[in-house]
Amino acid sequence: MPPDAAAGGRRAADLPRSIEARKIGVGVGYSIEGIEGMPEVEHGADLAALIVGSTALEDGDILVVTSKIVSKAEGRVVAAADREQAITDETVRVIATREYEGGVTRIVENRQGIIGAAAGVDASNAPDGTVLLLPVDPDASARALATGIRSLTGHAIGVILSDTLGRPWREGQTDIAIGAAGVHVFDDLRGGTDASGKPLAVTMPCVADEIAGAAELVKGKSAGVPVAVVRGLGRYVGELDLPGARSIQRPADRDLFRVGADEAYDNGYRDGFEESQSEGSLRRDS
Amino acid sequence: MPPDAAAGGRRAADLPRSIEARKIGVGVGYSIEGIEGMPEVEHGADLAALIVGSTALEDGDILVVTSKIVSKAEGRVVAAADREQAITDETVRVIATREYEGGVTRIVENRQGIIGAAAGVDASNAPDGTVLLLPVDPDASARALATGIRSLTGHAIGVILSDTLGRPWREGQTDIAIGAAGVHVFDDLRGGTDASGKPLAVTMPCVADEIAGAAELVKGKSAGVPVAVVRGLGRYVGELDLPGARSIQRPADRDLFRVGADEAYDNGYRDGFEESQSEGSLRRDS
Repeated sequence: MPPDAAAGGRRAADLPRSIEARKIGVGVGYSIEGIEGMPEVEHGADLAALIVGSTALEDGDILVVTSKIVSKAEGRVVAAADREQAITDETVRVIATREYEGGVTRIVENRQGIIGAAAGVDASNAPDGTVLLLPVDPDASARALATGIRSLTGHAIGVILSDTLGRPWREGQTDIAIGAAGVHVFDDLRGGTDASGKPLAVTMPCVADEIAGAAELVKGKSAGVPVAVVRGLGRYVGELDLPGARSIQRPADRDLFRVGADEAYDNGYRDGFEESQSEGSLRRDS
Repeated sequence: MPPDAAAGGRRAADLPRSIEARKIGVGVGYSIEGIEGMPEVEHGADLAALIVGSTALEDGDILVVTSKIVSKAEGRVVAAADREQAITDETVRVIATREYEGGVTRIVENRQGIIGAAAGVDASNAPDGTVLLLPVDPDASARALATGIRSLTGHAIGVILSDTLGRPWREGQTDIAIGAAGVHVFDDLRGGTDASGKPLAVTMPCVADEIAGAAELVKGKSAGVPVAVVRGLGRYVGELDLPGARSIQRPADRDLFRVGADEAYDNGYRDGFEESQSEGSLRRDS
């Protein structure tokens, strides 16, 4: 029995030939497969070796890796009792807060530049009594992993680190890319044309986020499948020094929603009140 | 030559057996295939018949249909010269605006409840000299399409209508679900547990948005592939009267980002200024 079969891994090499063939054409189809049977990841684990030992990879594959196992490998874990302090420590800027029964939800920009609830500090799939922090530099983690996997396999592989985040305006969460290496995070169509030849002036799909979300559908939240192999999107795989997921983050000064509506209103109210006080009354009858 | 081959359609029945088999297991893999060779969609077109004539479908398939072709079939088109008026007409509520060289970007909530730029009014892939509006009721359009396709094929098929939208905080766009029928839009894990048995209190992945984004990667913006078949996620397919994509939209009164930061600040400033004026000066020395 080959080692990967013993580990319960599904060999990517078993993927049907017709799917591989599509890569040669216009890329109209692809597949996503979860890697089953990966061992529990401990602090100090060699993730590249673990992944390569659990599946067979090919040129152009994109690995979507749940950031949780990267955090575990990097020892980014604190006691659950320190959760609130950990959120504070990870926070660069508070975007919005909302009180709920028993606490306050903090939407913040964290050290990684990612805007989300609780700065990415999360108890789910963390060891008992602990919470996991996001990797210190997810793009660097992705690059180290991609470098290791390329070295072990000799194949051009892209790596995306994913995390689960809520979003404004829409209920539920989607997985997005918080780290990336060896893969184009945008499909930059600016300057291109649509099917009828009209310019696609502002169109720049964030393929890294779309791939991360697509992979969530096989990784799930409770299935213990922390890595998925995306096969058939090799056109997005490139050099290791391509811009990472940090390039997806819009600078706050260009963002129309850089703080919450209540926070912005309160800031405005205070400024308006103070400005009025400093000017004195503008009413003619006072 | 069978008619679908003449139309250049790739038969979903040609998909490899191993992918179909995965549906029976724990659902650890799936595939997405663009339907090539679909004819140009005209006003009044029978989309269900067009799609069924272009590919072979199976129980549990999810069709992701670019909303543009639904708009075309429904005649939701106006002259390009009327674009600004059309945006105004489609707008229920202005969320934020930003001036740029040559105009103003309006982020609005439209009649469909979707928050995005220009109320979904878009020139790309519209007939020359026109712009397309979103379908009047995308969930109803999805339901009509799913009903027609189920009737023609006898298979349980889910339908998602997709559109391309920007988002706060992150550059680029992703495709999301603006209409859905016969498919669960959320994978409601609230009350479930993670791999180690801890409760997933608030986790509710928006699988419809993830599937729409996944399909964008094969449909693209310029390839003339308006429909994709997602095979292997049949666990999300269900009754036609499941909640549609409208259920993804968070009510404004529960949204921390219900208006833009500048707009909220300006509202606060005005209210604070007026409140101060009505109170008179609070300074002791005045």
